[in-house]
Amino acid sequence: MSKNSPGNFFEDFRIGQVIRHATPRTVTSGDVALYTGLFGARFAVQSSDAFAKAIGYPRAPIDDLLVFHFVFGKTVPDVSLNAVANLGYAGCYFRSPVYPGDTLSALSEVIGLKENSSRKTGIVYVRTTGYRDDTPVLEYVRWVMVRKRDEAAPAPGDHVPRLPTVVDPKVLGEACPKLDIKTYDFALAGSSHRFGDYDAGERIDHVDGITVEEAEAQIATRLYQNTARIHFNQYVEGKGRFGRRLIYGGHVISLARALSFNGLANAFHVAAINGGRHVAPLFAGGTVFAWSEILAKAELPGREDVGALRLRTLATRDRPCADFPFKTGDDYDAAVLLDLDYWVLIPR
Amino acid sequence: MSKNSPGNFFEDFRIGQVIRHATPRTVTSGDVALYTGLFGARFAVQSSDAFAKAIGYPRAPIDDLLVFHFVFGKTVPDVSLNAVANLGYAGCYFRSPVYPGDTLSALSEVIGLKENSSRKTGIVYVRTTGYRDDTPVLEYVRWVMVRKRDEAAPAPGDHVPRLPTVVDPKVLGEACPKLDIKTYDFALAGSSHRFGDYDAGERIDHVDGITVEEAEAQIATRLYQNTARIHFNQYVEGKGRFGRRLIYGGHVISLARALSFNGLANAFHVAAINGGRHVAPLFAGGTVFAWSEILAKAELPGREDVGALRLRTLATRDRPCADFPFKTGDDYDAAVLLDLDYWVLIPR
Amino acid sequence: MSKNSPGNFFEDFRIGQVIRHATPRTVTSGDVALYTGLFGARFAVQSSDAFAKAIGYPRAPIDDLLVFHFVFGKTVPDVSLNAVANLGYAGCYFRSPVYPGDTLSALSEVIGLKENSSRKTGIVYVRTTGYRDDTPVLEYVRWVMVRKRDEAAPAPGDHVPRLPTVVDPKVLGEACPKLDIKTYDFALAGSSHRFGDYDAGERIDHVDGITVEEAEAQIATRLYQNTARIHFNQYVEGKGRFGRRLIYGGHVISLARALSFNGLANAFHVAAINGGRHVAPLFAGGTVFAWSEILAKAELPGREDVGALRLRTLATRDRPCADFPFKTGDDYDAAVLLDLDYWVLIPR
Repeated sequence: MSKNSPGNFFEDFRIGQVIRHATPRTVTSGDVALYTGLFGARFAVQSSDAFAKAIGYPRAPIDDLLVFHFVFGKTVPDVSLNAVANLGYAGCYFRSPVYPGDTLSALSEVIGLKENSSRKTGIVYVRTTGYRDDTPVLEYVRWVMVRKRDEAAPAPGDHVPRLPTVVDPKVLGEACPKLDIKTYDFALAGSSHRFGDYDAGERIDHVDGITVEEAEAQIATRLYQNTARIHFNQYVEGKGRFGRRLIYGGHVISLARALSFNGLANAFHVAAINGGRHVAPLFAGGTVFAWSEILAKAELPGREDVGALRLRTLATRDRPCADFPFKTGDDYDAAVLLDLDYWVLIPR
Repeated sequence: MSKNSPGNFFEDFRIGQVIRHATPRTVTSGDVALYTGLFGARFAVQSSDAFAKAIGYPRAPIDDLLVFHFVFGKTVPDVSLNAVANLGYAGCYFRSPVYPGDTLSALSEVIGLKENSSRKTGIVYVRTTGYRDDTPVLEYVRWVMVRKRDEAAPAPGDHVPRLPTVVDPKVLGEACPKLDIKTYDFALAGSSHRFGDYDAGERIDHVDGITVEEAEAQIATRLYQNTARIHFNQYVEGKGRFGRRLIYGGHVISLARALSFNGLANAFHVAAINGGRHVAPLFAGGTVFAWSEILAKAELPGREDVGALRLRTLATRDRPCADFPFKTGDDYDAAVLLDLDYWVLIPR
Repeated sequence: MSKNSPGNFFEDFRIGQVIRHATPRTVTSGDVALYTGLFGARFAVQSSDAFAKAIGYPRAPIDDLLVFHFVFGKTVPDVSLNAVANLGYAGCYFRSPVYPGDTLSALSEVIGLKENSSRKTGIVYVRTTGYRDDTPVLEYVRWVMVRKRDEAAPAPGDHVPRLPTVVDPKVLGEACPKLDIKTYDFALAGSSHRFGDYDAGERIDHVDGITVEEAEAQIATRLYQNTARIHFNQYVEGKGRFGRRLIYGGHVISLARALSFNGLANAFHVAAINGGRHVAPLFAGGTVFAWSEILAKAELPGREDVGALRLRTLATRDRPCADFPFKTGDDYDAAVLLDLDYWVLIPR
């Protein structure tokens, strides 16, 4: 029997199946430095131990999206090595802050399966939880279209789970300790704008653009131990659909988040991701721009320190966002890469 | 009102204005590792905790230029986002060693303003101080040509400060603890040459060349949270003057410093920068070489452990330096990128 | 006298000469993060402090090959700066685990010298030992063809040492503490295959391919403070034999090791390298694949916890390894880059 792993195909999954993913990973200040070098985020809470301590954290927490990428990366060898497409996310929220020295692991439960009519592929729904020891730090549902090994194999299940379209504000504070906002230094954080300064419907151009290099994307994606082949293997991808390696979709999310500092400097914590769509693929050489709309605002039960903004952030390729490119009718503007719906916390 | 920041224009500055810059940044061993990977410096004091401890440091200090880049990076969004050109530095010296775990912040005072005759731009002089908590770790003056938002706006001031052409040797020891040179292992440091072995007027070819890749320069510049757009945005720069992204001038300084190990292996501490000129832009693909001249030597008051060498280091592009390329008449050799005048400390 | 170092030429070496290499280097979690980003290794012992502690390590040890690269890098300025070719390794084994915070240094003894008949070059054999303080952590013999400065110079010695073709299994456990395999979590490690599941003669395709970017290779090689010019200087190499920079041979070894996780996930410790041959050069843009053969198995004296597999791992360029490309007659397949013979430890 072969010792190498071909990954799971659609017919290998079962509803209720629980997968403990390899490889556990201790997150360190080295990961933080590399993440900063790759994306250039400037949110003060994650950048400075002193700033974080002043408001009530024990030290600077790990960037939320870095936690997401680590957990997501662990699921790839088991869930999406034979994926055709990553279709969506739902119910993603952060449940506990992560600090350097914490070891992350991940576990997924298969909660839905739906064969496609072609019988060549099927959709797998998994609920993944990231852990620090036994403490959940992150939870999300993801669905992905996976190839069948054998088209003639019977469908392993037929159930589409009901999924929330938005994460309930009452859980948004779980990964954010109670803060002392009197000691939050807005000048040092880079902006004076607080919860009360943003209005639903407001649009913000994040102005800057960042060009992506192949080496950057590969280093980032390997840092998360994400093994999806399409990101690393030019020999194979050169003969494939795009003729080149695809940039990991999470790379675009992290770039958009870093760009969003210009306009959302105090939105220091990504509390939840309601949903997201990778509208178009990104390749090295493309320049990513972003803009955001405030979709809604929410108070957090029992919290006077922070409030939540629901944001839609659009990332584009080679297309500045001063005029907020989005859709023409039902179709996305051709430059749109990402349409992300998420909650951030910001001081009140 | 827009939430994003367009940066300051010339008419936004005032003499005496004090700017507290975002974002505070805790420096870690992760930053050190990445800096080593990007530049390959080999100075033993910064490379080895054991070596540093043996001579009297509590542990290996952060590379001086890395401290400079962090502090400089913080000033960009406030001072030079709308800059046309970075014109010069003066009076730059290091005031306290920085170690992993220290959090750096920066503050600038506007000390000079001079509108150009075109009235389209003006020169802004700032004195910037980098801090660890309340302790100054670095101070320098920088002047930069900044665009006006509105050409018709009145000049916000008219004063050109007097600046030192050289940093006084009496402050050069501030960021270097008293060392026990008997325990300084010259073999381990890579050279037997001490203060007494160098003569004013001596020239040293640093021999090696390093080719710069776009990804390296972007990762480095983001590590410092430097947001100058010209380094990151190929979409915009592709339509601009050079047709491509410009490598951050500080990248060339760090490369030249790393190359200078071959000939100056014991010059472990950059104590001050008297002045510097970015003579020509560097783009990815260029190979950087360097050579140095000993301009002067200085003893430090009350210090038997170390002496100071005043160096001029020239960096070139695609041009080996065995014959010390410099100027033809008043003009720099076409290959020269950088002309840096600085003080280093070296064991006596 | 020039302050810069031209490196040693063949006639500069003497049998019995001992060289203490610069620069000592404290290894940190920053180095580990960068190494993970560059190669994407997923072995649980090196990735997770929690996993390592559970089985008996004090924390996650540094990847063995990273230790090798650090020690090797230190020898370059003294041993191989004027090398024509890196000819081979023998008797390489790890003697003590290395952890973040340890400072590494290196010492080499010249154990053989043999002038080539052309009198233009000679072969230098060195035994190099890497140390943490006074504790050896790694030992190996390497031989390299070095240019003469002066063809007329007499040969500095004439002795070819006898070298082992394989490292004795009795030393293979030196850098691996006694482990509690009952607490080794095979699911978390990514595979159920143990010592007993592998058979001599078995071949494993590691399936995936990784394309190498110039920036990645330069960052890695500088991280090790390896100064070999051929890896960094496009200006010079552009006029040279290959027209481009050569990827450090150790980069291929690390890629092959990372790829080998897919099929050898529990082979967590590289205990020794019996020998290795860089069959062909690698350049940026090439995609590296790998496969392994189990050459032999060995029990370790007094150890019930782990056993040793002797592996031959072949790395190829732009050539998947499903059919195990190796040799045609005496000649290697044109795609082969690396033929590495080494011992790994794996739970019993």
